[in-house]
Amino acid sequence: MKLATARIEGTTRAVKIDGDTLVDLGHADLGAFLAQEDWREQARAATGPAIPATGVALAPLVPRPTKVVCVGLNYKNHIQEMGRELPKHPTLFSKFAETLIGATDAIERPGETEAFDWEVELAVVIGKQVRRASTAEAEAAIAGFTVLNDITCRDWQFRTREWLQGKNWESTTPVGPYLVTPDELPGGVRPTLDVRLLVDDEVMQSDNTGDLLFDPVDLVAYISTMVTLNQGDIIATGTPGGVGHARKPERYLTGGETVVAEIEGIGRLENLVAKEGAA
Amino acid sequence: MKLATARIEGTTRAVKIDGDTLVDLGHADLGAFLAQEDWREQARAATGPAIPATGVALAPLVPRPTKVVCVGLNYKNHIQEMGRELPKHPTLFSKFAETLIGATDAIERPGETEAFDWEVELAVVIGKQVRRASTAEAEAAIAGFTVLNDITCRDWQFRTREWLQGKNWESTTPVGPYLVTPDELPGGVRPTLDVRLLVDDEVMQSDNTGDLLFDPVDLVAYISTMVTLNQGDIIATGTPGGVGHARKPERYLTGGETVVAEIEGIGRLENLVAKEGAA
Repeated sequence: MKLATARIEGTTRAVKIDGDTLVDLGHADLGAFLAQEDWREQARAATGPAIPATGVALAPLVPRPTKVVCVGLNYKNHIQEMGRELPKHPTLFSKFAETLIGATDAIERPGETEAFDWEVELAVVIGKQVRRASTAEAEAAIAGFTVLNDITCRDWQFRTREWLQGKNWESTTPVGPYLVTPDELPGGVRPTLDVRLLVDDEVMQSDNTGDLLFDPVDLVAYISTMVTLNQGDIIATGTPGGVGHARKPERYLTGGETVVAEIEGIGRLENLVAKEGAA
Repeated sequence: MKLATARIEGTTRAVKIDGDTLVDLGHADLGAFLAQEDWREQARAATGPAIPATGVALAPLVPRPTKVVCVGLNYKNHIQEMGRELPKHPTLFSKFAETLIGATDAIERPGETEAFDWEVELAVVIGKQVRRASTAEAEAAIAGFTVLNDITCRDWQFRTREWLQGKNWESTTPVGPYLVTPDELPGGVRPTLDVRLLVDDEVMQSDNTGDLLFDPVDLVAYISTMVTLNQGDIIATGTPGGVGHARKPERYLTGGETVVAEIEGIGRLENLVAKEGAA
């Protein structure tokens, strides 16, 4: 199944994608829908009301998750090509909900950065509340997968030793377009999918999610050791090589570009980089 | 004025502290109350219903803030005694809402840590939504101040280069007891208050909030540059010297201790360190 949060008549609605139509799931957004214990059965059985998908814009997949947890280095190829050893534990940071935008919304490039960079990521969406999840519980807690572009102000990221301030600029992080359930993906809850990022049609990142050092199940188990993961929470699993900061010469988004982040079998984010007013 | 979120009859209520009574402010918690544009006038005018304060437990001051932003090194004395240069920018990380507990709740010590440490902090509570706040706007956005004990699993904090996983264990972070408005504090929105932390009556940390390198107004302006601060959001301004990790020998909480974090003119957090079941 493919689920999303659509912008309909001035508000948002949780919907199921059914070919060319969107089936209303009876909730204001996907986060609220996933909070129903039997959301899978409800989604399968949903038949209407249905509206044509054409011209309907998507909101952030989950507009107000209680958590967006992000993973640093996680693609083995990329870690090794950088000459680093494989880490024992995932490096974690977080994003505030205000960073999130929809699949085709403009990314607000802040006037305060000179190093605005891209990071395509496979993102896990939680479908069941878990704490200290076993492997089986972690597998069962995964509602499905989506795409997240962890747009980053590198200059702010490296101002201090914590990355937060490079990663938390308002309206910079597209997430969507759809939540795709694991049964539709090769590898299921440990999907093996080609992932790519393009800037104005030039391929910048290209890898496969099968190369993740800490897979989605590992991450749900690890993070839930410390804190409860709630329905609608998002875990961004890290980005492969090819970011602008690591290029020689470095290459950054200046505004006016179109950035496409896509994962096979899930969908694509296509976002114009706008120039924001301030600073 | 002193405001809080109290646990009353199986739910929570925003209240004003009026001597020995709690005056109900008509909202489920302080976050919801602060979302009213005229909350100051409403709080001043509130007359009832009032209930005796005796025996009423306090919830986390704001149970579900959209953000808890924390500052790393920020006390000048402590930075200099560690032989470091004063940083140009505040180091920021964040906590999820599930970490928060009330002023006298037990702190859940996870079985997974061997290095459970304390950090008393002055915390700012936001009373007005702001983005890219000027100095005057940042001053006006501060609803008041409270106390936060940023309990930390040092072993997890230093597993990777990001601090998040040492700082985000469920039910470990007392915050409260009250929000005290700036007009009641020396220094106003840049308060100069003695701050102390005691473990079983032994003083471990003792400093004054006038020593902050980045004061509350600086922090509101800086953080709001990147992202909107909402009513009820919390900024923990950093801790002075005297944490267990920096002691020789190192000293950690093993369970059974009582930790008191107090700030002159605001109040005290007094929390038993419980042993949690897992791991």
